Amino acid sequence: MTPESGLPSEFELIARYFAPLSRGFPGAYGLLDDAAVISAAAGSELVVKTDAIVEGVDFLPDVPAELVARKALRVNLSDMAAKGATARAYLLDLLLPSSVTESWVASFAAGLARDQAEYGVHLIGGDTSSTAGPIVAAVSLFGEVPIGRILRRGAARAEDTIYVTGTIGDAALGLAASRGQLPGLDAAHATYLLDRHRLPQPRTALGPRLLGLATASIDISDGLIADLRHLCEVSGLSAIVQARSVALSAAARAVIADQPRHLLTAITGGDDYEILFTAPPGLESRIAELSRSSQIPITAIGQVTATAPQERPQVTVLDEHGRALAIVAEGWTHFGRRPRIETTAY
Amino acid sequence: MTPESGLPSEFELIARYFAPLSRGFPGAYGLLDDAAVISAAAGSELVVKTDAIVEGVDFLPDVPAELVARKALRVNLSDMAAKGATARAYLLDLLLPSSVTESWVASFAAGLARDQAEYGVHLIGGDTSSTAGPIVAAVSLFGEVPIGRILRRGAARAEDTIYVTGTIGDAALGLAASRGQLPGLDAAHATYLLDRHRLPQPRTALGPRLLGLATASIDISDGLIADLRHLCEVSGLSAIVQARSVALSAAARAVIADQPRHLLTAITGGDDYEILFTAPPGLESRIAELSRSSQIPITAIGQVTATAPQERPQVTVLDEHGRALAIVAEGWTHFGRRPRIETTAY
Repeated sequence: MTPESGLPSEFELIARYFAPLSRGFPGAYGLLDDAAVISAAAGSELVVKTDAIVEGVDFLPDVPAELVARKALRVNLSDMAAKGATARAYLLDLLLPSSVTESWVASFAAGLARDQAEYGVHLIGGDTSSTAGPIVAAVSLFGEVPIGRILRRGAARAEDTIYVTGTIGDAALGLAASRGQLPGLDAAHATYLLDRHRLPQPRTALGPRLLGLATASIDISDGLIADLRHLCEVSGLSAIVQARSVALSAAARAVIADQPRHLLTAITGGDDYEILFTAPPGLESRIAELSRSSQIPITAIGQVTATAPQERPQVTVLDEHGRALAIVAEGWTHFGRRPRIETTAY
Repeated sequence: MTPESGLPSEFELIARYFAPLSRGFPGAYGLLDDAAVISAAAGSELVVKTDAIVEGVDFLPDVPAELVARKALRVNLSDMAAKGATARAYLLDLLLPSSVTESWVASFAAGLARDQAEYGVHLIGGDTSSTAGPIVAAVSLFGEVPIGRILRRGAARAEDTIYVTGTIGDAALGLAASRGQLPGLDAAHATYLLDRHRLPQPRTALGPRLLGLATASIDISDGLIADLRHLCEVSGLSAIVQARSVALSAAARAVIADQPRHLLTAITGGDDYEILFTAPPGLESRIAELSRSSQIPITAIGQVTATAPQERPQVTVLDEHGRALAIVAEGWTHFGRRPRIETTAY
């Protein structure tokens, strides 16, 4: 125990809280070595992804440690799902300021343990470091996908239908609620929206089942319109979205009924962690069946189109009268959720 | 360009500075997707390792960005080498406070490019995020090793000889020099020592050649004695080190001649990034030949011993008269290089 911080030594922390999270994964060597060994199953290859969450940027300082841990893991699980891959293991870089207590670390590790059990992944290595700044949890996640089958951003085709899972905008509206920007909202709706901000629900059960159906796929973390734009730019195509088709939760509908401008918050805000994918016409019934059997809503919201000659790929959102929502086009710069450089995993 | 910070958007930063670092690695998809794909060569498996460096903890705030980048990569390359693995690719989580300029990012990326060329690795994914705290660069490194051959910490055997590469203590003495704690040191020696602190020289050319020779291996990052102790604890064995056998640079010898207590700084200080390995008796000539052909000094410094019944593994350091250096035994708690929890990768 070092008297300065009230934390046990880093070796004790690892032995007590992190080493148990490696049980069941032989290549992790019980976190007693300097590195881990991992192999993909025969016929598969490894998919790797990293994303860091930062206190004050990606989570509010009052969020319980258990939820911080689960969000750190889940934002990466969401990417893995959108790529059609199945997650297996992860590395963790954890930076802790001196204000952190042992009970915080215990709760953080309990959050990891809970989601490890839910998603079938293991901690196989990491780094615990002190910092003079905010808490940071960077996860590097490893998954498997059949060789050559990973779902890419850039493989959409003109005439494809654009689909999204779940509902859009809840997390961004939850953040607005937590900032007191939605004063008329009832408590149950506010709780629902804030929970969606604090704890993503990655679509891991669905992602691998999109292999053979989806042409292109991306997880929605920067916002529905921004991520659709990313998909379009890499595919060299454009898109038209029907705003009224975007699936909204009852809570989000209540917010927008009260303040219609929050439709833009919903479709441009981030942290949805739903999957946006494209699929060719003719697969509607198979996708509907997939939605039923997985019990995950899947909604068609628009169509991929050819990009006009001499123009850049663009995303157009139409209102119920078929008019383009002009303000959305400005959303790229004005609706950024962070003041300076934003968080972008690549 | 966001006016608040003077930095281009995160997408422009990635396109301008980071995407070029993925060229030549097809599975990185030019950093234009959400994840990368990696496979080990036939007969090999992947070795994974992460370690983060933090401004003010692992590097001084005035260190040029290029050196920060290279240190971030090299501390991980050192682990990979000690495991007998050959590095191939990495992910990068980079946290930047608002004070960082575009030229800082350009210099950081130039440092990565330089070391990518030197060590044959590629950036295949990452995350750029803003932070209210210090700069953080967390690298997750992927390497290859023949299946089942990774060099472990825990496979030492009683009677093995203990070897180290290079010289010990330079980085810790360099840090002491930078803090003005070595006033009598001449400028050339001070520069040499500080360079050793700022830029590790990972033994990547040697590591894979230890397969078939070394029984156990670890890179020296926490300090010679601490890391030897880690190796002994996992192996369930003890060790005796001859202090006079520990290889020291001319600069370190000059410091110790002036202030003998700094022998302890050298053997308990961290950041050497040399390889500590064990090998059975009888391999002396092969190891000498390996040292010659690789042009990397390799020095025998002691011996692995059985641990006495009912005792825990321990490391004993003997002075030139065969007396145990008692103060070293206290070094575990008093010679930590950081005030609270230390940085420990596992």
